[in-house]
Amino acid sequence: MNPEIAQHPLGIITPQYCTASNFKLDCGAVLPEITLCYEMYGTLSPARDNAILIIHALSGSAHAAGYLSENDRKPGWWDSMIGPGKAFDTDRYCVISMNSLGSCYGSTGPTSINPATGKIWGVDFPALTIEDMTRASIALSDALGIACWRAVVGGSMGGMQLFCFARDYPDRLQMMIPIATSARTTPEMIAFNYVARRAIMDDPLFKCGHYDVANPPAQGLGIARMLGHISYLCPEAFESKFGRRFRAGIPARTYNTQNAEFDVEGYLDYQAKQFVARFDANTYLLIMRAIDYFDFAEKFDGDMARAFDVIKTPTLFISFDSDWLYSPALHDVMADYLRDIGTPVEHHVLHSFCGHDSFLIEAEAQTPIIQNFIRKYEK
Amino acid sequence: MNPEIAQHPLGIITPQYCTASNFKLDCGAVLPEITLCYEMYGTLSPARDNAILIIHALSGSAHAAGYLSENDRKPGWWDSMIGPGKAFDTDRYCVISMNSLGSCYGSTGPTSINPATGKIWGVDFPALTIEDMTRASIALSDALGIACWRAVVGGSMGGMQLFCFARDYPDRLQMMIPIATSARTTPEMIAFNYVARRAIMDDPLFKCGHYDVANPPAQGLGIARMLGHISYLCPEAFESKFGRRFRAGIPARTYNTQNAEFDVEGYLDYQAKQFVARFDANTYLLIMRAIDYFDFAEKFDGDMARAFDVIKTPTLFISFDSDWLYSPALHDVMADYLRDIGTPVEHHVLHSFCGHDSFLIEAEAQTPIIQNFIRKYEK
Repeated sequence: MNPEIAQHPLGIITPQYCTASNFKLDCGAVLPEITLCYEMYGTLSPARDNAILIIHALSGSAHAAGYLSENDRKPGWWDSMIGPGKAFDTDRYCVISMNSLGSCYGSTGPTSINPATGKIWGVDFPALTIEDMTRASIALSDALGIACWRAVVGGSMGGMQLFCFARDYPDRLQMMIPIATSARTTPEMIAFNYVARRAIMDDPLFKCGHYDVANPPAQGLGIARMLGHISYLCPEAFESKFGRRFRAGIPARTYNTQNAEFDVEGYLDYQAKQFVARFDANTYLLIMRAIDYFDFAEKFDGDMARAFDVIKTPTLFISFDSDWLYSPALHDVMADYLRDIGTPVEHHVLHSFCGHDSFLIEAEAQTPIIQNFIRKYEK
Repeated sequence: MNPEIAQHPLGIITPQYCTASNFKLDCGAVLPEITLCYEMYGTLSPARDNAILIIHALSGSAHAAGYLSENDRKPGWWDSMIGPGKAFDTDRYCVISMNSLGSCYGSTGPTSINPATGKIWGVDFPALTIEDMTRASIALSDALGIACWRAVVGGSMGGMQLFCFARDYPDRLQMMIPIATSARTTPEMIAFNYVARRAIMDDPLFKCGHYDVANPPAQGLGIARMLGHISYLCPEAFESKFGRRFRAGIPARTYNTQNAEFDVEGYLDYQAKQFVARFDANTYLLIMRAIDYFDFAEKFDGDMARAFDVIKTPTLFISFDSDWLYSPALHDVMADYLRDIGTPVEHHVLHSFCGHDSFLIEAEAQTPIIQNFIRKYEK
């Protein structure tokens, strides 16, 4: 047993599942049944009124804190933020983290069995929107009997879902905490996603999505992930992590234009390899496209001020100065819209050299801001 | 005939060529003969002392101004900057633009014939460095009998060559004008190049570089180019050029995760297609790797202040506030090194919403700065 597990206040976590029937999607399709995977940290009060919902980013899972088994090497992706005395304090709250609809970590998505065929959905899984994912989180709320969340929290893609949640289900949350996110996917983000999608789709093993799951388009998916990692970092992170160092075992230039000599190249290869082992290509395309489609102002011809006009939910924005893709400026605009209509809002721009990844890393700076905000606005 | 050609002061330009023998490369290889392609705008003085050398970026050519034929649709890549009364005034100077060694636009590179085999070099062309390219520009200088250039000018990769030129051949230029460039390729740039290189190398048609030139790795090269375009733009350029518009003929979401629906996606596809028709995959790998290898402080263990310590050449830096890959901050550092040792230096940060591409586009703002600098420091 990993000795850190014995010491860990949350210990080993068992994923849980709920289902919902006849789940209608924005594209017009209806999923006869969906399964949603979630994890729970802390204890739900008898009145079920102390719950905080955590929603993950593009490639995340429900496994946000604690360990999954005795031999698990690493805790969940937001373990530094969830637990006794942490930003999301499990002594006070029941923190529930869910896997988004469409993902490949236990919730229904392209890797799930299509009941109509008995085989995995694969490329036939219907396209999703951020709004569909938000409705799935309401299905989870219903299944758990949670009428109103103390807070709904999400970074990056997770944050996008909060705006829809607060707009469409304002009575079902007391506050929202969108972190390192955007109310619309910018054309620059769409461009990054497109290059990633092209890399997957151009891989001959992809076969228009009808690939053999035992022989998936690993090279294309790897390139897509590398590109993601570039966009999640920032110049300072590249300098401090890698500089211009060569990889271990490469003493000097090989003068072969096809080699990977630099440390940063080895890092990208490693990340690609790790990702390919844990993620599914059709799922990646599906979730990237849901992100691309997201524009909170869509129903108002892009007029974001009007779109935010209905949001009365107290909102805590957190952004990071080195996050160039989900920049502080994008958050400033959103915060101003809410401030203009009198909605309680805070926007904290934190200093970090970790780029977009900061929201996963900078626990110490985020913790007091989040704790204070929750205590200020909880009812 | 394109009517604009008749009006154009430079009209139709004929590329010229010079050669050099036994050209030694940093990797240890010797090219028995190299050809260098160049174009000339304006008239070389009898003393050959009025020449300005222009060096292009990654995928550029010698064709910087004027037209190549009566049916040419567009002038050269820096036509807005070269001509009578322009930044590089052909009434006063003889402007010479050369194609870098290793490129595929007339100078010796992977698409040239290897005299030892009678076939194209292809993947067997030896790896290059920025220093090799700089020595090639000295070979051009010798062939043209130009003892000292009035100015040597380059943007992006072109700018990198200037630092080597001024360090290794200080008597052969009166001033240098590095624009939107860097004295070292940062790990972030290496990362972008690596993803682009991987996309090319993973294309099954690439065949470890031994591809059929009639059936090249077009998809991989296209992805590489898309990635380049993303890094050359900036958020503002993406917003103003594309926003979240769908492509012409796409009225609404198709809900097919494999489609290209957004205008920005169509743009990237178009750029990829254009590039694949005009550029060679092995050449792209070769030049990207030369850029990756470039570190002006390499011989001083990365101590850039010491590397710049020998540069007495008056230097005009121009950078652009929206160029996030070759940021103004990178130029500030270089300018400070020169200022500290008393070398005449100016650094102008220009405002633009065109990202790295600004140096190709923002002629009006660059022109007076360049004209004044040249007049101030020419001898």
